[in-house]
Amino acid sequence: MMDRSPKSAYTLMTPGPVPVPPDVLNTLAEPMEHHRTPEFRAVFQRVMARLKDVFATGQNVFMHTSTGSGGMESALVNVLSPGDEVLAVVSGKFGERWAEMAEAYGARVHRLEIEWGHSVRPEQIERGLRERPGTRIVLTQACETSTGALHPIREIAAVTRSSEALLLVDGITALGAMPLPMDEWGVDALVGGSQKAFMLPTGLAFVAFSARAWERVERARCPRFYFDIRAERDANSNGETLFSSNVPLIKALDVVLERFARQGMDAVHARIARLALATRAAARELGLRGFAPQPSPSLSALALPSSVDGQALRSEMEKTYRVTVMGGQDRLKGKIVRIGHMGDIRDEDELTMIDALGRALMACGPAPSLDEHRLGAALDAASAVLAGRA
Amino acid sequence: MMDRSPKSAYTLMTPGPVPVPPDVLNTLAEPMEHHRTPEFRAVFQRVMARLKDVFATGQNVFMHTSTGSGGMESALVNVLSPGDEVLAVVSGKFGERWAEMAEAYGARVHRLEIEWGHSVRPEQIERGLRERPGTRIVLTQACETSTGALHPIREIAAVTRSSEALLLVDGITALGAMPLPMDEWGVDALVGGSQKAFMLPTGLAFVAFSARAWERVERARCPRFYFDIRAERDANSNGETLFSSNVPLIKALDVVLERFARQGMDAVHARIARLALATRAAARELGLRGFAPQPSPSLSALALPSSVDGQALRSEMEKTYRVTVMGGQDRLKGKIVRIGHMGDIRDEDELTMIDALGRALMACGPAPSLDEHRLGAALDAASAVLAGRA
Repeated sequence: MMDRSPKSAYTLMTPGPVPVPPDVLNTLAEPMEHHRTPEFRAVFQRVMARLKDVFATGQNVFMHTSTGSGGMESALVNVLSPGDEVLAVVSGKFGERWAEMAEAYGARVHRLEIEWGHSVRPEQIERGLRERPGTRIVLTQACETSTGALHPIREIAAVTRSSEALLLVDGITALGAMPLPMDEWGVDALVGGSQKAFMLPTGLAFVAFSARAWERVERARCPRFYFDIRAERDANSNGETLFSSNVPLIKALDVVLERFARQGMDAVHARIARLALATRAAARELGLRGFAPQPSPSLSALALPSSVDGQALRSEMEKTYRVTVMGGQDRLKGKIVRIGHMGDIRDEDELTMIDALGRALMACGPAPSLDEHRLGAALDAASAVLAGRA
Repeated sequence: MMDRSPKSAYTLMTPGPVPVPPDVLNTLAEPMEHHRTPEFRAVFQRVMARLKDVFATGQNVFMHTSTGSGGMESALVNVLSPGDEVLAVVSGKFGERWAEMAEAYGARVHRLEIEWGHSVRPEQIERGLRERPGTRIVLTQACETSTGALHPIREIAAVTRSSEALLLVDGITALGAMPLPMDEWGVDALVGGSQKAFMLPTGLAFVAFSARAWERVERARCPRFYFDIRAERDANSNGETLFSSNVPLIKALDVVLERFARQGMDAVHARIARLALATRAAARELGLRGFAPQPSPSLSALALPSSVDGQALRSEMEKTYRVTVMGGQDRLKGKIVRIGHMGDIRDEDELTMIDALGRALMACGPAPSLDEHRLGAALDAASAVLAGRA
């Protein structure tokens, strides 16, 4: 792996933001140039072409200057009309967010509540659509970042594509971390964000629409301007973004997409999957079980014994070992710890995190069965996975 | 002035994006950290406090991850209800944009059309409000970036503050470049953007609301979510942004605001005003007149003789002299050249630009009265202003 210098004050292992590779950071520090220069136009065209490979789509992928939530808003308001029936998978904080957003824009939202940590089953979507055949839109995450659960997008899309409902997928913590072939599976709108597997700072959202979603775009009556994808499409066809371009971030994206193209998406996905396996192998040795029965490769949510205060654990890891991981949100506050596998994570970072997690568990105990020996076994287990020996 | 290295491929002199100072660029390249670390929380609190100084307001200033247009959308949708009467000053492309945005969100928009290049007169606003006493909102730019015209915000606010209409000001190309004391003048919503006098890349919009605007916020019925300032306010009171923070850009903003605090806003404004005066002194020697009778200090729009093709001129400046300036937009395409005075512009950059402008004018002529001697006089005139001798 590449040297990273200067070393961050923290080893960053959250499900976003993620460590940004040094060559990408250097790109951010290049002198500002205008988005109308021939050099930047070439970057923009290349990025727009390569984003299609990550989305595995023949459709154009658009970008907004926004967080991922702005991308979710774009996917929604461009196909929604007030009063539309919407079926929203709510299995965590981000499902909740999309449902609230749809309500804010006048949709009649039916929440498909899933126990936090669990994945929706395709037959639940099927039943929802049967009960309300007028459903126009299905909202779901590919990965629910607040719980680490992976939803079966391929199987859900097999249900929605034979219905009138469009399937809108928040792939913010999934795109670039696992296969999510939009066209092949039949996803109608797919959303990504720069600060996840794209290994960049927050600031760009990505969104693409299927052919049948585009038909809906033309007729949708939800008011929109900043996120109006029709205007964005017109600007893009002139080689520009609709509004001012974040030139450094798009240049940095170009560097990341070049790396993706060089390594191949399979290898990019495999690296993340391996970090996930290493984390889970170590967690078993530390006596922690995964919170999500069907976990996403992009992060691991680990359930904490009730004897351990998750906020104290996270704080101990950060203060004493300078390792940043995330705790649980809302109803999961203090109950889980979430570890990210996306971004420029070296093997040493992974082992540093496991060591810090084990030692913090011992400090925040009671963790009677955990000792130096078990921690050594956890590090060995992770190491074996990383080296391809397990 | 500070050394800049590495030198940009272009001398960037547009009204946005602008040259970013080297120490700010270096901040962008620091290893990523999480927005929940104590270090970043301290940065966030400091930035939120110092933004109030730039806005000259006791109200909280909020930031969105978006372009400046996203900030305009935030200012609008948070106080608008569908059907509201809106008076929109349209004196260029950005006035047009705000009027279209208000229409998209269901306002009944009355355009106060001003000849492009000219400034609105306060009595025109007064008459507009008299003709439609139900007017709820007045939209205007402080500086219309497409023409370089400065609108008399202080005088307009004196009219609106004694009416029921809120005054929403797009200060994107004005904030940080000239005094725009929101509270003292009585502006109801003020919008800024990172890529102008804040000397940063595109990516952050700033917005603040007056006390009477906040009353409107609570009752406004325009649907909103990503730009919902009520939710943003709640998140900020917990020391966070509502959605994912652009950590590097906020850290870079902290560096800029520290510089503003050190220099004082008067000195920051004075530097920009001096560059504007230097440009205009040189332009007179080159035989070019200012396009806007009441120009903003943040940029100079120079009218080109009909014999000169503005697009050819801009292209010649960029290709031969590696100086980027902007041309005119829409109906002004080819007819003006726009030169920015914001950002990290050194005296050498200013003189490089004037030299390139003069030589490109000679190349793109006919410019019979322009020769080496006149170009020398233009450089001398600018130099005298920069040195404080004129």
